[in-house]
Amino acid sequence: MPNPDIDLQRLDVHSRSERKAVSHRALLHAALTLVGEGRSFTSISLREIARQAGMVPNAFYRHFASPENLGLELVEEMGITLRRLLREARQVDPSKGDILRRSVQVYQQYVKANRLVFLFISSERSGGSRVLRVAIRRDVTHFTNEMAQDFRDLGLYKELPTARLQMVCGLIVMTMLAAAIDILDLPADQPLLEHEMTENFVRQLQLILLGAGQWREKPSRGDLPA
Amino acid sequence: MPNPDIDLQRLDVHSRSERKAVSHRALLHAALTLVGEGRSFTSISLREIARQAGMVPNAFYRHFASPENLGLELVEEMGITLRRLLREARQVDPSKGDILRRSVQVYQQYVKANRLVFLFISSERSGGSRVLRVAIRRDVTHFTNEMAQDFRDLGLYKELPTARLQMVCGLIVMTMLAAAIDILDLPADQPLLEHEMTENFVRQLQLILLGAGQWREKPSRGDLPA
Repeated sequence: MPNPDIDLQRLDVHSRSERKAVSHRALLHAALTLVGEGRSFTSISLREIARQAGMVPNAFYRHFASPENLGLELVEEMGITLRRLLREARQVDPSKGDILRRSVQVYQQYVKANRLVFLFISSERSGGSRVLRVAIRRDVTHFTNEMAQDFRDLGLYKELPTARLQMVCGLIVMTMLAAAIDILDLPADQPLLEHEMTENFVRQLQLILLGAGQWREKPSRGDLPA
Repeated sequence: MPNPDIDLQRLDVHSRSERKAVSHRALLHAALTLVGEGRSFTSISLREIARQAGMVPNAFYRHFASPENLGLELVEEMGITLRRLLREARQVDPSKGDILRRSVQVYQQYVKANRLVFLFISSERSGGSRVLRVAIRRDVTHFTNEMAQDFRDLGLYKELPTARLQMVCGLIVMTMLAAAIDILDLPADQPLLEHEMTENFVRQLQLILLGAGQWREKPSRGDLPA
């Protein structure tokens, strides 16, 4: 028969680690909320993040060594968000036609549903912290390469060498990220404006894919600067 | 014979307005310098800008009603910078071949020479102030349409309706602005990395232009949401 003391102790450890996870999430969420209010991440102090999360400043250090460390975890969060997006996009049934337009709709909904994460990416990928910029760039490249792999798996653009397919996906991702800030800035009561934006976004992607379909690799000029 | 008193007075007015112009420029430069140090524009206070320019805070109001007002003047500065860029790009002699690669080189040099203005555009076009975002977007659209007009004047892509040519130029400008932050982040001692980045940038533009050359307008699906 188990010793009830030990059980209680286990329960306690369990709930302590749960509480820790809850405060950890609260700090991440607090930082994103401040970004959502128009603050740039690098201008937000540890003290403000703690206050927003309803904690004393010192509690911050139980979770992160610095705000930049928290920022790096938000970048990981962004990586997870982007990977979920790819999974959702894979659900678009290619047999039903107009796959591009429907993927764009999936993306628009997704940006609206993950508003704060996309605001964070949009502003910090050209923001004040080089450490965060580099981390975001690495994760965006990772996402780009996964998208290229999806194209390969679907048997699309078989003529393109992998490096070129990744370049095409790089252009697509750049267009997506530029569209994100337009989507987030749309006034709520302007359906015509939203429609025009969507059509423009679809056409930009069509043009990139048209170029990809026409691309023929020229002999390399050599890989070193002349 | 002129009255010397009046002349002196004129001289005084003249030098006072000159002094005013100098402090005005100093405040604009101070704000850009702070942005160059990694600060986001919206996080910079009037007091800090004045201090950076070597003025007392109250002197700020002789030039701008608010930091956002100063920001709007920086956006105008950016518009002038972009227009100068178009003028420089027009100097590239199309008869000498590889016009794209040489335009890219002009652009890279230009971004390096106007580092602070490009840092400002890059961060504030998805930064915390909606007023500045909208102003930047409007000026970038203006630049895009001027580029489209240059394409027209050169007789390029005659098949494309104006709206589509503007969309193509929109993609080009987006690619240019995304490249700007990569150019500014390049470590000084990595020529191979810089070469790879340039090649990638050139290929992205080639792909967009390839798509533009292949674009055939489909019948409109109507201009209103379904």
